[in-house]
Amino acid sequence: MLAPDDFEVYPTMTTTTHRPAAVTSTAGRVRPLASSSAEITAGVLHGWQERNRTRTIPHTLTELRSAGNLDNLRSVAEGTGAPYRGRYPFLDTDVFKTLEGLAYELARPDALTGTREFFEEAVALIEAAQADDGYLNSFFQHPDTGKEPWQDLSWGHELYNLGHLIQAALAASRQLGDDRLLGVARRFADLAVTKFGPTGDNQVCGHPEVEMALVELYRATGDTDYLTLATLFIDRRGHGTVTLSVFPAEYFQDNVPLRELPSVTGHAVRMVYLAAGATDVALETGDGDLLTEVTRLWDDMVASKLYITGGLGSRHSDEAIGDRYELPSERSYSETCAAIGTMQWAWRLFLATADAHYLDVFETILYNGYAAGLSADGCAFFYDNPLQRRADHEQRSGAEADGALLRRGWFSCPCCPPNIIRWNSELQDYLAATDDDTLYLAQYTNATFATDGFDLTLTTDYPWDGAVRLTVTAADDVERTLALRVPAWCHTATVTVNGESIAAATENGWLRVTGRRIIGDVIDLDLAMPVRAHGSHPYVDATRGAISIARGPLVYCAEQQDNAENLDDLLVSPADLAAATTAAVQLGEDSPTDSILVTVPAVHAEPAVAAALYPELGAASGQPTHPGDPAQLTLVPYYLWGNRDARAMRVWLRQR
Amino acid sequence: MLAPDDFEVYPTMTTTTHRPAAVTSTAGRVRPLASSSAEITAGVLHGWQERNRTRTIPHTLTELRSAGNLDNLRSVAEGTGAPYRGRYPFLDTDVFKTLEGLAYELARPDALTGTREFFEEAVALIEAAQADDGYLNSFFQHPDTGKEPWQDLSWGHELYNLGHLIQAALAASRQLGDDRLLGVARRFADLAVTKFGPTGDNQVCGHPEVEMALVELYRATGDTDYLTLATLFIDRRGHGTVTLSVFPAEYFQDNVPLRELPSVTGHAVRMVYLAAGATDVALETGDGDLLTEVTRLWDDMVASKLYITGGLGSRHSDEAIGDRYELPSERSYSETCAAIGTMQWAWRLFLATADAHYLDVFETILYNGYAAGLSADGCAFFYDNPLQRRADHEQRSGAEADGALLRRGWFSCPCCPPNIIRWNSELQDYLAATDDDTLYLAQYTNATFATDGFDLTLTTDYPWDGAVRLTVTAADDVERTLALRVPAWCHTATVTVNGESIAAATENGWLRVTGRRIIGDVIDLDLAMPVRAHGSHPYVDATRGAISIARGPLVYCAEQQDNAENLDDLLVSPADLAAATTAAVQLGEDSPTDSILVTVPAVHAEPAVAAALYPELGAASGQPTHPGDPAQLTLVPYYLWGNRDARAMRVWLRQR
Repeated sequence: MLAPDDFEVYPTMTTTTHRPAAVTSTAGRVRPLASSSAEITAGVLHGWQERNRTRTIPHTLTELRSAGNLDNLRSVAEGTGAPYRGRYPFLDTDVFKTLEGLAYELARPDALTGTREFFEEAVALIEAAQADDGYLNSFFQHPDTGKEPWQDLSWGHELYNLGHLIQAALAASRQLGDDRLLGVARRFADLAVTKFGPTGDNQVCGHPEVEMALVELYRATGDTDYLTLATLFIDRRGHGTVTLSVFPAEYFQDNVPLRELPSVTGHAVRMVYLAAGATDVALETGDGDLLTEVTRLWDDMVASKLYITGGLGSRHSDEAIGDRYELPSERSYSETCAAIGTMQWAWRLFLATADAHYLDVFETILYNGYAAGLSADGCAFFYDNPLQRRADHEQRSGAEADGALLRRGWFSCPCCPPNIIRWNSELQDYLAATDDDTLYLAQYTNATFATDGFDLTLTTDYPWDGAVRLTVTAADDVERTLALRVPAWCHTATVTVNGESIAAATENGWLRVTGRRIIGDVIDLDLAMPVRAHGSHPYVDATRGAISIARGPLVYCAEQQDNAENLDDLLVSPADLAAATTAAVQLGEDSPTDSILVTVPAVHAEPAVAAALYPELGAASGQPTHPGDPAQLTLVPYYLWGNRDARAMRVWLRQR
Repeated sequence: MLAPDDFEVYPTMTTTTHRPAAVTSTAGRVRPLASSSAEITAGVLHGWQERNRTRTIPHTLTELRSAGNLDNLRSVAEGTGAPYRGRYPFLDTDVFKTLEGLAYELARPDALTGTREFFEEAVALIEAAQADDGYLNSFFQHPDTGKEPWQDLSWGHELYNLGHLIQAALAASRQLGDDRLLGVARRFADLAVTKFGPTGDNQVCGHPEVEMALVELYRATGDTDYLTLATLFIDRRGHGTVTLSVFPAEYFQDNVPLRELPSVTGHAVRMVYLAAGATDVALETGDGDLLTEVTRLWDDMVASKLYITGGLGSRHSDEAIGDRYELPSERSYSETCAAIGTMQWAWRLFLATADAHYLDVFETILYNGYAAGLSADGCAFFYDNPLQRRADHEQRSGAEADGALLRRGWFSCPCCPPNIIRWNSELQDYLAATDDDTLYLAQYTNATFATDGFDLTLTTDYPWDGAVRLTVTAADDVERTLALRVPAWCHTATVTVNGESIAAATENGWLRVTGRRIIGDVIDLDLAMPVRAHGSHPYVDATRGAISIARGPLVYCAEQQDNAENLDDLLVSPADLAAATTAAVQLGEDSPTDSILVTVPAVHAEPAVAAALYPELGAASGQPTHPGDPAQLTLVPYYLWGNRDARAMRVWLRQR
């Protein structure tokens, strides 16, 4: 395996100056900025992009070559007769998702050598592997598998493949001006229109994804056939057309039409990809009823099915979402891909509505449930993201276990690593949006924003500190509004313009600062970021009698490494949080950034090692009191957990 | 499908008067009674046996015929070329387990027609299907499957098949004096001795089970080859010889030798079958170290991994046991077969040690985690046994779901139904044991006991009432001790002999009454059975802040049908249990027995429907107080849950 050092700096090949973002809808309340209008320059998110470029991408390219993902395409393209590698029909998508990320990286200075070579090799193989009718899927095209195209819509992932191909193709076209993949994608998409369009087969893919991609292809090309097909796929699903074998209809969201679904259900990634695609369809078709239904599903999910980390999916079995309030910490599935899909859904709902609430959830996912999926060194991945790990945790279940107790370098189903690559590479696409006269700042990180005649530089130590400074670097003589998101976790937000306080109230999560700006104007936003405690809804059995510590957008967790006492024997109280302390640290040399630890007062519980599993309670057994000896509990940001040896971890701490 | 009424009464074919029990060890501290020395005559367990005979067996015979289990054997036996039905290599065992139960039923009066016919047909097919070398497994023998015997020890279940064949064969031999199956079983067992014995292949079956059966075959035949082979299988496992594909080594208990295993692990049924077999080996070989290790594993399991219902297995994924204290109610797997296996293990540990503790756990499983696996009408089964069901529960996961919200009539993997059949048919084998001068009463139910020169009749309304009367019906002039088990849940046990109190203290769970008895002597045991509450160990996150109600051996649960208010909104306290009331009821016409409801005082919680999922807690947020309006909560025995429509159920109730 090549080490990251084997990849050397390669000159950028960017040929385009205006580079549209991954989502370009102009039909909603707000419009995203172009990729080329926002650049992340420093801080945590910049660290993630640097790590992506220098660590995760080289690692992943090596793994993709080693696992045979390219060889499968090569075998079909060149008819070499080389055996099919791996066992899944979606292994091309790991190449596509990687190419989507590489397109962004190649548009930046300092792409490493190896990056362009992989891109060129993969694009050439994809072009050559495509069948004459436009079909492309190396699993079904490979003679080894004995399968025919479209014979197994339920599990074949062929339209899921098409979706990721389209997204990679659009990224290459937009970021690099390279339309080779777009040609492949359109030929495949046109085949799909013919086969599954209004006069075609009444079928859907077992794995939603193509809907989002088809809508974006419509946005890019103006070809309404793609939007029509995406709409058909949304409305066809839920009528029992997916042939079932191992999994039930709920898994595929095929039990009930999306518009009538009581609550998000089934396989978590399928669900959020479907909902994001439906939101895209609602945006572009102006279908207000559909938007109402996806909004209802979102609200229900946030109210009853999302982990405090933003993770979605409570069950390992079927990688399923689970029932309302079924949110076990230790068996949280919270697949990293579901985190990405939920952010994709949130962003589209925000574009449709300008509602800051969606960005709050986006932020929670980004800094917690999503970020935990990648190791500090960028080369190992959690597929599932638990919120608790027991000291004597013995086993992880299923095919992906291999005895691993923490993150792994690769998977036989490697959907998450390349999904992380593309998402980290396009983080700048999700920082801001505009409407006619307002710039909405969705996420805070060191960045430059260039809009039409009005440029800004943002400097901050966010998420470690809530001070955010905006400096105007270009201005025209037009009254502008800056809509500054005040996260739901922040109760005290103040803003000054050139050092002077202004009277601005937070409304629906936005603090609006309006005026004509000149170059050099400084707007300072301060978001108070005390340590805080959260409980959980009384219906959540799994975390009853426990609290979670947070600071700013970060959920914290206790790791045994930082605490001498057994984590299960320490009790904390919201009443003691005023005495919480913070300390800036560097968490190991592989950590991409400084971090802030939080230490909170605690007390020792009575030792419970010898206690009965189900003690009989006498009449005097009311609420237990725990006056035990004072102690303290040191916590780290959840997303950094599991970067040391495999020991106990808790997000939810026993409450005294 | 035939209805139960299609099966008519058929005369008993019993030819033997001394019918040994399923386990005949004489090497431990106590010896089991023969099947023919104990008869269940009335009450709950008798109701279960009657239901087994008149409902579950006819239903299962119909399902086995319909699913093709017999046809697979026929196809091999007759070379008909009929296709293999089903997809698993262990479908013969469903026939074997059923035959084991039928052997018991055919030894009783009033076996239904259809029973003997199935038995005769199946035995003939099994004899005919056996290969010349003794091999028998219709999956591997069937040309459709393209498999060769022994090519896939990990998943082939061939020795697991042998185990169930031996157990059926011994039952037929012992209960009916019919040695046809025993001939088949010995030929197959002798093949296994040759192939896997001391000079054979260093391999084990992926699914333990044969160990128990081989030891019993040794007990029945005196052939030490079988004991040697069982011992080899115990000691070989844990050295990584099982070839892994989908499941990790822990699943097969092949990661660590049993003697060194820190805690019960992996697939729950495999684990308890293995441990039961190891206990058998320890009993017969006198291996005290092995007995020490299985006892250690048992103690650890009871202290940290067993549900309050006696269920084992916290994970749907891999049907796995899970970590210590990982005991989620809603996702409890607690497979019905694991309940049977855990009782088998408990019984063998009791035989080895005479320790009443094992019988307490046996009783908990019998009346709760095991009994819940069968519907009141005897024709539907839970494969997994949750301890909580949410009101809006939408889905059950995996291949077995089929949209079913409660018990199902059959499964593509139908291991549990015939396991219930054999277990219910042989309940009398687990009621009592003896040593030289003591009769140990392990479980209380209406029964007659005939030992050598000393016969008893037991009358009781147990488990509804703790009054147990023993009447001497035959006596010799020998001093006898009756060891009466005082369950761990009982704090006040009194005993009288012919109406006079005797001074007898409970020691280690036994209340011993010694003396020379004459016919007509009456010993009355009274086990106080108040409603009680149990908490859980503070490390059990899933049930923190909740209590469970029990009475006698029965765990109770709340079902929404009996309670107007949302079960999640009612809070209970151990302090209020003195005001609990009980009421005898008949729970529906399909209920096999009267039942006793328990009603406990409760209070209403604040309505939580609109509450935030993760509310921020202020400094004043200590332990919540819930002074709400008074209410009450009516509970039913857990084992009877889910016999009405699919609504909410809770074993663990929110504690105020």
